[in-house]
Amino acid sequence: MSDLPTNASEEFKPQLRKDPILERWVIIADRGKRPTDFPPEEEDKGKFCPFDEGNEDRTPPEVYAVRPGGGGVNTPGWKVRVVPNMYPAVITEGDTTHHGIGLLDWTRGVGAHEVIIEHPDHKFSFARADVEHMLLIVETYIQRVKDLRGDKRFRHIIVFRNHRGAAGASLKHPHSQLIALSITPETVKQKLKAAREYYLRKERCIFCDLIEQEMRLPDRFIYANDDFVVLSPFAARFPYEVHIFPLQHCHDFTLMAEEQKRGFVDALQFVLRRYDGEMNDVPYNMMLQTAPNPIPRPGRPDYWGTIQCDYHWHVELLPRLTKPAGFEWGTGFYINTVLPEKAAEFLRTGAEIEDAATAQ
Amino acid sequence: MSDLPTNASEEFKPQLRKDPILERWVIIADRGKRPTDFPPEEEDKGKFCPFDEGNEDRTPPEVYAVRPGGGGVNTPGWKVRVVPNMYPAVITEGDTTHHGIGLLDWTRGVGAHEVIIEHPDHKFSFARADVEHMLLIVETYIQRVKDLRGDKRFRHIIVFRNHRGAAGASLKHPHSQLIALSITPETVKQKLKAAREYYLRKERCIFCDLIEQEMRLPDRFIYANDDFVVLSPFAARFPYEVHIFPLQHCHDFTLMAEEQKRGFVDALQFVLRRYDGEMNDVPYNMMLQTAPNPIPRPGRPDYWGTIQCDYHWHVELLPRLTKPAGFEWGTGFYINTVLPEKAAEFLRTGAEIEDAATAQ
Repeated sequence: MSDLPTNASEEFKPQLRKDPILERWVIIADRGKRPTDFPPEEEDKGKFCPFDEGNEDRTPPEVYAVRPGGGGVNTPGWKVRVVPNMYPAVITEGDTTHHGIGLLDWTRGVGAHEVIIEHPDHKFSFARADVEHMLLIVETYIQRVKDLRGDKRFRHIIVFRNHRGAAGASLKHPHSQLIALSITPETVKQKLKAAREYYLRKERCIFCDLIEQEMRLPDRFIYANDDFVVLSPFAARFPYEVHIFPLQHCHDFTLMAEEQKRGFVDALQFVLRRYDGEMNDVPYNMMLQTAPNPIPRPGRPDYWGTIQCDYHWHVELLPRLTKPAGFEWGTGFYINTVLPEKAAEFLRTGAEIEDAATAQ
Repeated sequence: MSDLPTNASEEFKPQLRKDPILERWVIIADRGKRPTDFPPEEEDKGKFCPFDEGNEDRTPPEVYAVRPGGGGVNTPGWKVRVVPNMYPAVITEGDTTHHGIGLLDWTRGVGAHEVIIEHPDHKFSFARADVEHMLLIVETYIQRVKDLRGDKRFRHIIVFRNHRGAAGASLKHPHSQLIALSITPETVKQKLKAAREYYLRKERCIFCDLIEQEMRLPDRFIYANDDFVVLSPFAARFPYEVHIFPLQHCHDFTLMAEEQKRGFVDALQFVLRRYDGEMNDVPYNMMLQTAPNPIPRPGRPDYWGTIQCDYHWHVELLPRLTKPAGFEWGTGFYINTVLPEKAAEFLRTGAEIEDAATAQ
């Protein structure tokens, strides 16, 4: 049937593939699932949990743990524990050579996919945890990212958190994840490109300018402390979406000073307590957006120096009250049915919105 | 607090807003919803349905209808009926001037948002309908798009279909929708740009080349008739995602010949019957991707002539078995847990995948 070589779809597992038209990569991490094998939501009624303390032998061996009282690896006594994901989207073995035939491009799914188990207790609340424990989690994020940056195959590392099944969590035990990738993701590239272009024109950080402009208005301001500001994004994609920025310009969240970490936890928990309380434990996604890993760029020796000036790390929080549908998938446009200024007022004050709700 | 003018967030309802960093627009169509006002799924147990025959006075007045037996507007006797959306994302009144302060850009939410009620019967099956009725629906899509193209404010029109609540449908009565926008959406722009660049380099259509390449391999081929081919995308974002292309190069789906329309219905229903039967009526989104509306471009008189050569209309079908989560929202990367070649085999043959399913 064909005089082209077959494209060796089974050659690499997992595999990164580029869309032949768009600048979009996907991870093909085949699990041999039938169409009827996709569970609708997390199910957690008294089931065995591999993340509970005492079940350390039921996860892949840990790569990091906080054990203030000492104790052996993969034994109880930890406060925060990091293990490779049992069903990884990407794996650490292999090279990052790109392959292709004609319009099709692929490469090995090389990277790291780790689970940050946030607490030994299955019922731990990330929103309401005490500051000292939250600092251990933040420090774990930092240590894991710094460690993985040592692997020069990895271009970008994203830390994220899916809260509840409707936000994509498949296990209920509180956890964050991180994925290191050999390709800088498109969304990150777009942000970097916009920030770079703005900086080259103005010698100012676009994020700093945005924060400056937004903090002069009451409209979308939610909360601030000495080190962080919480804003309702002007062009929010989702109802009650929130962005958190460090007030002092910095491209990389691993560079936070000790006092800033406390400010970060304070700002983050300010929002998460609204989500948990006033918004009835709404499912949400949290994404930590930081600069990509410094990789030598031939002919562009200043690239990583400039990124320190033009990029500004931040956190995005997306409550999952609505479902993107055909319009969103087909256009990249989003329809947000809550005015970001009303969302800001609600999140700022914790009070109900006055307007009568109109039925959808 | 401020020496900047307020940014008049309530000025236009609805409102299009541009992300200050990314080239991404959102529609702010505020419905005064509280966080607790978002229903989880469609609820349809014996409730009143405004789309049922006999309830024509409970929708906005119709803009189009197929009435082979005659009969007055907004009365029973129709086969397909088009009405403005009761809760529109965009409205037809107003100009498309762009406004802005500093980093923030906005404009009126000008456009059209219509509902194509596909059949008078609440229990109509789009997947299993007879060809003659499906042709009436396809003809309705074409007539509505052609009519709306007469409004020179509209840059792009997308026809889409959300099947079941998990795919974003808020009413169960079978219907499609269309949205006309005053701004070409980012995803469409990216496709147009890629197709343009490829054409300028090769004087060939990238979609035609992709179809040619994929039809020489059995790997991702699902189905073809004389006029259409059904493929499992090499870099599918979602398990069991499908793309349908006309075999004969054409940028605009409204130019289909009569015989091609039958081929389109045949190809579409081939997939939808798999979704309905073998995949247990899986929720899905359907998006009809066609060229944007011809608008005069100063200094680029050949633009629309070239688009006829470089763009190729197509349909995307996305089953909603998985939920995008923090990783997807934060990177634009997707994790697909079913190999597109296995999905193709399943959809081609209707048979179960052999591999044992591994638990997620």
